[in-house]
Amino acid sequence: MDLNKFFKAKNIAIVGVSKDPKKVGHVIFRNLIDGSFRGNIFLVNPNAYQILNKHVYKSLNDIQNEIELAIIAVPAKFVLNILKDCGKKKIENVVIISSGFKEIGNEKLENDVRELADKLKIKIIGVNCLGTFDAYTKLDSMFIPRYRLKRPKPGGISFISQSGAVGSAILDLTTSQNYGISKFISYGNATNVDESDILDYLGEDKETKVICMYLEGVRDGKKFLKIAKKVSKIKPIIAIKAGITEEGTKAVISHTGTLAGNSQVYYAAFKQANIINADSLEEMFNFARILEKTIIPKGDKIQIITNGGGYGILTADSVIKNNLKLAKLDKKNELLLKKQMPDIVIIGNPIDLVGDATTERYRVAIETCLNDNNVDVILLIVLYQTPLIDTTILDIITEANDLKKKPIIVVSTGGEFTDVLKRSLEDNNIANFTFPDEAVKAVKALVDYYMRK
Amino acid sequence: MDLNKFFKAKNIAIVGVSKDPKKVGHVIFRNLIDGSFRGNIFLVNPNAYQILNKHVYKSLNDIQNEIELAIIAVPAKFVLNILKDCGKKKIENVVIISSGFKEIGNEKLENDVRELADKLKIKIIGVNCLGTFDAYTKLDSMFIPRYRLKRPKPGGISFISQSGAVGSAILDLTTSQNYGISKFISYGNATNVDESDILDYLGEDKETKVICMYLEGVRDGKKFLKIAKKVSKIKPIIAIKAGITEEGTKAVISHTGTLAGNSQVYYAAFKQANIINADSLEEMFNFARILEKTIIPKGDKIQIITNGGGYGILTADSVIKNNLKLAKLDKKNELLLKKQMPDIVIIGNPIDLVGDATTERYRVAIETCLNDNNVDVILLIVLYQTPLIDTTILDIITEANDLKKKPIIVVSTGGEFTDVLKRSLEDNNIANFTFPDEAVKAVKALVDYYMRK
Repeated sequence: MDLNKFFKAKNIAIVGVSKDPKKVGHVIFRNLIDGSFRGNIFLVNPNAYQILNKHVYKSLNDIQNEIELAIIAVPAKFVLNILKDCGKKKIENVVIISSGFKEIGNEKLENDVRELADKLKIKIIGVNCLGTFDAYTKLDSMFIPRYRLKRPKPGGISFISQSGAVGSAILDLTTSQNYGISKFISYGNATNVDESDILDYLGEDKETKVICMYLEGVRDGKKFLKIAKKVSKIKPIIAIKAGITEEGTKAVISHTGTLAGNSQVYYAAFKQANIINADSLEEMFNFARILEKTIIPKGDKIQIITNGGGYGILTADSVIKNNLKLAKLDKKNELLLKKQMPDIVIIGNPIDLVGDATTERYRVAIETCLNDNNVDVILLIVLYQTPLIDTTILDIITEANDLKKKPIIVVSTGGEFTDVLKRSLEDNNIANFTFPDEAVKAVKALVDYYMRK
Repeated sequence: MDLNKFFKAKNIAIVGVSKDPKKVGHVIFRNLIDGSFRGNIFLVNPNAYQILNKHVYKSLNDIQNEIELAIIAVPAKFVLNILKDCGKKKIENVVIISSGFKEIGNEKLENDVRELADKLKIKIIGVNCLGTFDAYTKLDSMFIPRYRLKRPKPGGISFISQSGAVGSAILDLTTSQNYGISKFISYGNATNVDESDILDYLGEDKETKVICMYLEGVRDGKKFLKIAKKVSKIKPIIAIKAGITEEGTKAVISHTGTLAGNSQVYYAAFKQANIINADSLEEMFNFARILEKTIIPKGDKIQIITNGGGYGILTADSVIKNNLKLAKLDKKNELLLKKQMPDIVIIGNPIDLVGDATTERYRVAIETCLNDNNVDVILLIVLYQTPLIDTTILDIITEANDLKKKPIIVVSTGGEFTDVLKRSLEDNNIANFTFPDEAVKAVKALVDYYMRK
């Protein structure tokens, strides 16, 4: 389904904008201005003349320009009338923020909205949704003020969320973690555009490199499976299924009225469609971080390089626990490393460059591993606390990564100094983790996806 | 074993201090000054007169004052002579940073050091260690500059680490995460003070509320088990065992020459001694955060309160997956809540205060759960992105927590705005987590520890 105008529209209308800065329509307008949206915004409200110095139209039909997208934030009872106006004005894409439909038992109104929209060939994101966001165009229909929910920088991760709260909290977190986001979609009641339609669209979207989904249930299982199979051949899909226990399922029913379904059925479907299952939000977050980078591993043999012995051991344990393999360096390369390193360095897996590791030791070790055919992924532990590491380590890692020979994943634990260096690596498209275990689990997701593909 | 002077000495000597700011002794001296250590520092180096405007003694025996602790940072070959000086000067506590002993195969020298120290009744932290730190006195023998490894604020978590790298990285992280630390000990080769001696000491230490241990192996299993059993009756011990797979075990041997032992034996011992096992550094970190607070749960029945439906479902799933129970509110309280809340609020477990939750809804829900005998632990999800929550929520949570009736754990995901509010709660002794799953796992560790005790 072509949903492009939801993200790339040039002329948009906000219907139900108010003078009151707390009201949803006003917040959306404000966000678009503050976020430097470059398109043209048209405001609609029969009872206002001007808001923030901008003219307000009485109705959509008073606008002379063509409108590609309408954001509707009026009380539920007015939605049908606004949709009729959209039909007259030939607006094909609407985001309906308004709530008060099937989620509170008002099935009839929701069905009427769907029938009318279908008849008028209008695509609805919503009803009862948080909105949408595009980090490239800054087209932003989310009704949460920017001071409460900062907007992330442009990047390759797109996020589809059945829950507005989950979506917004994660989106907010991505910003402080320096993730790059392509598109965010909270689809609410999925009145006539559902999770599968959005997945289909994001599969084709050039700006999206990896798709994350928070699902409570799927409306049409067959449709979802068919589309997911197709999309996962093009790019990775990471999904978290909420309501996997009996108790969680009960909560799903109270929450959105969705049939949560048997979790085993979901897991089987995920496997069949090569969807990466995340067991927690944190996992989804970590998997997205690693899968957004596009260097494809040739296999599951991991080489650990470390300047902290203990970290090396914990990581080796984790590699085995997660059913990955520890690489065994080519004899020739082992000898080459031994020749270039002081005796105290331990050549094996982990390669332990020890506490007085210099940046040069890292350079030699990384180069050798990049050239060793027995190594598929390099897991690089860099504890920036040790005194002989200088900041040229960033250049060394970045330049090695730029060769795009093998995935290089970095683990660093620390405080402010570490954080600055981590952010710098992230800016250069390198995945960083704080703890060995989370890095290894993410590598496992990466390797599994490409080995199954 | 009384190790108090390692942390509370007033007069300390640094032996092997140098004019070169990169050298270990110099860094330690510098850290003590920059960290505002209040005691008296005496410098020893036969080849220097003054360093940073401070007089340098030729030898320990030239110092007139009594010295309670010596920090030794001289090449390994000089250590025996310095120890003899310590004997003459009646110094009973020494930290030996110097490396070059059994870790590089020099067993003989290490044995000589042990025998001499035992004869002179000198307790050694080290050899080959990173040093020690006390957040209350700022007595700091760690040789990593403060700009690379920030020192944490005073608090209740003490940390024993066989690996300097693991210890320093975690310590650095605690600072940026606003954890409070009591004592940190990197014990290196455990020449005559081992992990069990330190554990014993921390068990008695009033400033330590929870003990974290990173272990590659234990020197004396029986001694460890006996002491751990005693200490865990007083306060929680969280341990992470490195080298639990065959591959990890090999790495342990290369790292410290410790016999890693069979991991099953360790796990059995942990269970017997009610030591909380952490499967990863992240878990250790999260468990410490929750166990440092001293509110004891009466049982394993968890009540979830949320303003995000999806978060509630994920948390309910996690409670069940982690073998905890979802509380069932007393009928009377259920009715009371229904009366006080708008219809849209879902009273159950989770209690879903929904996206337009006000601070007042939280107040009513928390109060009711605190008074309900079916609830043992309150898991409070607060997504600060939603518009009607104002910052008085902090007062409400803090005041409820101050009653010390039940543990209240908060989950909030977000960016800068969220982080500010989280830190404020942490300052008021409330454990905060980013994701539901990590919070629930930490609650599980908390409940298990007290139910077994």
